[in-house]
Amino acid sequence: MASKLFAIIAGVGPGTGASVARRFAQQYPVALLARNPDNYKPIVNEINSSGGKAVGFSADVTDVKSIRNAFEEISKEFGNANLAAAVFNVGGGFVRKPFLEITQEDFDGAVAATSRGTFNFSQSTLPLLLKTASTNPEYPPTLIFTGATASVKGSANFSVFAAGKWAQRAFAQSLAREFGPQGIHVSHAVIDGVIDIPRTKEWKFDAPDAKISPDAIADAYWHLHTQPRTTFTFEIDIRPYVEKW
Amino acid sequence: MASKLFAIIAGVGPGTGASVARRFAQQYPVALLARNPDNYKPIVNEINSSGGKAVGFSADVTDVKSIRNAFEEISKEFGNANLAAAVFNVGGGFVRKPFLEITQEDFDGAVAATSRGTFNFSQSTLPLLLKTASTNPEYPPTLIFTGATASVKGSANFSVFAAGKWAQRAFAQSLAREFGPQGIHVSHAVIDGVIDIPRTKEWKFDAPDAKISPDAIADAYWHLHTQPRTTFTFEIDIRPYVEKW
Amino acid sequence: MASKLFAIIAGVGPGTGASVARRFAQQYPVALLARNPDNYKPIVNEINSSGGKAVGFSADVTDVKSIRNAFEEISKEFGNANLAAAVFNVGGGFVRKPFLEITQEDFDGAVAATSRGTFNFSQSTLPLLLKTASTNPEYPPTLIFTGATASVKGSANFSVFAAGKWAQRAFAQSLAREFGPQGIHVSHAVIDGVIDIPRTKEWKFDAPDAKISPDAIADAYWHLHTQPRTTFTFEIDIRPYVEKW
Amino acid sequence: MASKLFAIIAGVGPGTGASVARRFAQQYPVALLARNPDNYKPIVNEINSSGGKAVGFSADVTDVKSIRNAFEEISKEFGNANLAAAVFNVGGGFVRKPFLEITQEDFDGAVAATSRGTFNFSQSTLPLLLKTASTNPEYPPTLIFTGATASVKGSANFSVFAAGKWAQRAFAQSLAREFGPQGIHVSHAVIDGVIDIPRTKEWKFDAPDAKISPDAIADAYWHLHTQPRTTFTFEIDIRPYVEKW
Repeated sequence: MASKLFAIIAGVGPGTGASVARRFAQQYPVALLARNPDNYKPIVNEINSSGGKAVGFSADVTDVKSIRNAFEEISKEFGNANLAAAVFNVGGGFVRKPFLEITQEDFDGAVAATSRGTFNFSQSTLPLLLKTASTNPEYPPTLIFTGATASVKGSANFSVFAAGKWAQRAFAQSLAREFGPQGIHVSHAVIDGVIDIPRTKEWKFDAPDAKISPDAIADAYWHLHTQPRTTFTFEIDIRPYVEKW
Repeated sequence: MASKLFAIIAGVGPGTGASVARRFAQQYPVALLARNPDNYKPIVNEINSSGGKAVGFSADVTDVKSIRNAFEEISKEFGNANLAAAVFNVGGGFVRKPFLEITQEDFDGAVAATSRGTFNFSQSTLPLLLKTASTNPEYPPTLIFTGATASVKGSANFSVFAAGKWAQRAFAQSLAREFGPQGIHVSHAVIDGVIDIPRTKEWKFDAPDAKISPDAIADAYWHLHTQPRTTFTFEIDIRPYVEKW
Repeated sequence: MASKLFAIIAGVGPGTGASVARRFAQQYPVALLARNPDNYKPIVNEINSSGGKAVGFSADVTDVKSIRNAFEEISKEFGNANLAAAVFNVGGGFVRKPFLEITQEDFDGAVAATSRGTFNFSQSTLPLLLKTASTNPEYPPTLIFTGATASVKGSANFSVFAAGKWAQRAFAQSLAREFGPQGIHVSHAVIDGVIDIPRTKEWKFDAPDAKISPDAIADAYWHLHTQPRTTFTFEIDIRPYVEKW
Repeated sequence: MASKLFAIIAGVGPGTGASVARRFAQQYPVALLARNPDNYKPIVNEINSSGGKAVGFSADVTDVKSIRNAFEEISKEFGNANLAAAVFNVGGGFVRKPFLEITQEDFDGAVAATSRGTFNFSQSTLPLLLKTASTNPEYPPTLIFTGATASVKGSANFSVFAAGKWAQRAFAQSLAREFGPQGIHVSHAVIDGVIDIPRTKEWKFDAPDAKISPDAIADAYWHLHTQPRTTFTFEIDIRPYVEKW
């Protein structure tokens, strides 16, 4: 049955996205989305050369035309398979500034883009997940959103970043309530800490292992995906053992 | 001193906005904003004819040019006074629909508009409130946002409405943390129930008094405004005694 | 009508309790409870000598016999009046210790005492408040609990203190949902910061006015009491403008 | 290494406790606690007869002497092994009654017992878990609490049950913050729905699979246990796909 299913991961770069892609590729062919092909190419190659199947697609999830095009291409590539899981891991929108220095462009890049990307991705994947639900798959079709500390706390100087992430979490919660009874597992992960990825390599903390493992995030997402529909988790928080919270 | 202060209320129609305007007009001249002059005219006339001072301004808070124009006009009209309080009571954005029927226009009208309106209004008022803070006013300069049940809960079929309101609450929380230490009182009210306004007149409940009094909301906002800076309330919830929650 | 109503404040010492007593005594005769008469005597004298009416009662709210005795005495003293408002401001239970150093006595003094005091006081006052509700009073009968930061956050080393305060907040929330529809206004205040009382006089902060005004807390409680039943606030948070949160 | 580790599960009956015992027994010998030996005997026998190791212990976690005795016996039985994981799954305390009908005995059985059981179990297991942390085990030593809907919501008529569960969650959160930096993984699960156990067999819902799978709860707990310390989840919620929330 697994050969007739596939997964989509949006927001694939050298960090969490790659780990999630690698984890889900153990079970499913994966479609990997990023704006810039340079972001998905290494992990696409890695998966394909190690016996899995991955295809990369260029898409800007904040642009409805771009995401529709990407899903048409995905359909051509994976069209006879059903969507088992979709992960929205698109970062972006990070702005840390005093509020009165924030520009309309900052607002557009944070609030508008994050919420619109969430909206577009959900509208593109949910019809496919619903179709899968009707096929009695081993695991309930799953839609997972990667959140952040700013998804649950509006800290000073994080206004537009938090607004975008709160909007995303509102979508996730509303979708969980609407599509749960239809057999779709919608989850939201609050990633509360620094992830150990190339971009944060130089960030030093007192403890040598103070950064979140992207592979362990991927394991958590995979666990969420395997939960039966009697036993859905909507939200998990994830943080390093030394994190203040 | 009161004569040198004024208040701005955005989102003034025949409901909460009018009550808030009426309450704050007992102490301050008020600038009342609405997209449609028909919305503010009755309360402007009522306040002016009963010994207060009110001026109406047409503005679309979701449009940065429109709100800048409105604040220039406000400055001409109230320029020698300091802003004592600003209330963002703009509704809009209400959409209740299955997620897969929601259009890009619904998204724009709910998420984008609500969050951008919140952003624009905050950017326009906070510099004025900061200036007031330096004048040692009787009550700390105050910025209040009117939220809803959907500000704290993403219910099924409320996705875009909730996303916009969660984004607004994120702004409020972030601004409270940034501007509180500068002496500005930022508050958010979760209005959890049906308000007793002309538009809801025909809505019947088992209890005859099951709807929230807009005048009592206004009293609560006024109480928030009078809190000294040693004793700020960020958030209140408001609901009828019979409300399920 | 005011002459036939009275208020009860439990946990009256030289801080918030005294301020609340003073504020409610402007409208009602007040019954003031404390374990130690030395705690209520000064404010009882102050209120009585300034034209109000106050009577002190010794009671340990964590001891069901003690509180029943106190309410019998209250009934003798105020028996022909109806209970307009009851405020539970009993502190106690503060323990800040590494968890493995906490003793059974610490547990008893924090978790057990705080939750039992909350329970006992609620059971003693709610029947009286229900009776008042049937008399169509000017303001809905009100039951207010004073919470703390630890009511919403379980910080390291605050385990038993937080457990007691969370239990208290659970009671408040459950009672609000059960007795709200019966016309009783149940509220909970999260006091998030240091209150400016004799005991904290020597505590210094960067800002000269970094401590919460107990009189402003009392004003907030009074505002809660005056809300009509169409427009109940369950919870407010209160903190100084400079507080980190 | 696994042979030198063991797990403790408190609150073992024919439901979640048995499933958790079965799951953890796949990796570790398990010590199973219940007040009544009839509750642990079937699962003890099942595990032992299928190649695992389980030992049952009679203990009342709300009684400090009883739990100390039990841990002395555990020490004799498993003393040369380190504690890998401890799960507090003690139910009890369920009371659903109008508040004014609740007795002191109800209070004792719900609030006092639940919070004291949580406290006692934590004080007994944390020193053992700390010792394990120093041995560099494969998985971080773990302490998991089973919560309920009432852990996060104080519904009408659930006052004492909610108060006990909120107190438990406060403990869990405080312990997570204190012992996380010491390498202990403390987690809390909000089980929001009816679990499919013998006691609920007759409870019928519209959907045939509307009850939570205790085995899937056990899988979630096992996943929590396997998280590396860089990537701890403090809280998960678990509910059936058809649950209203």
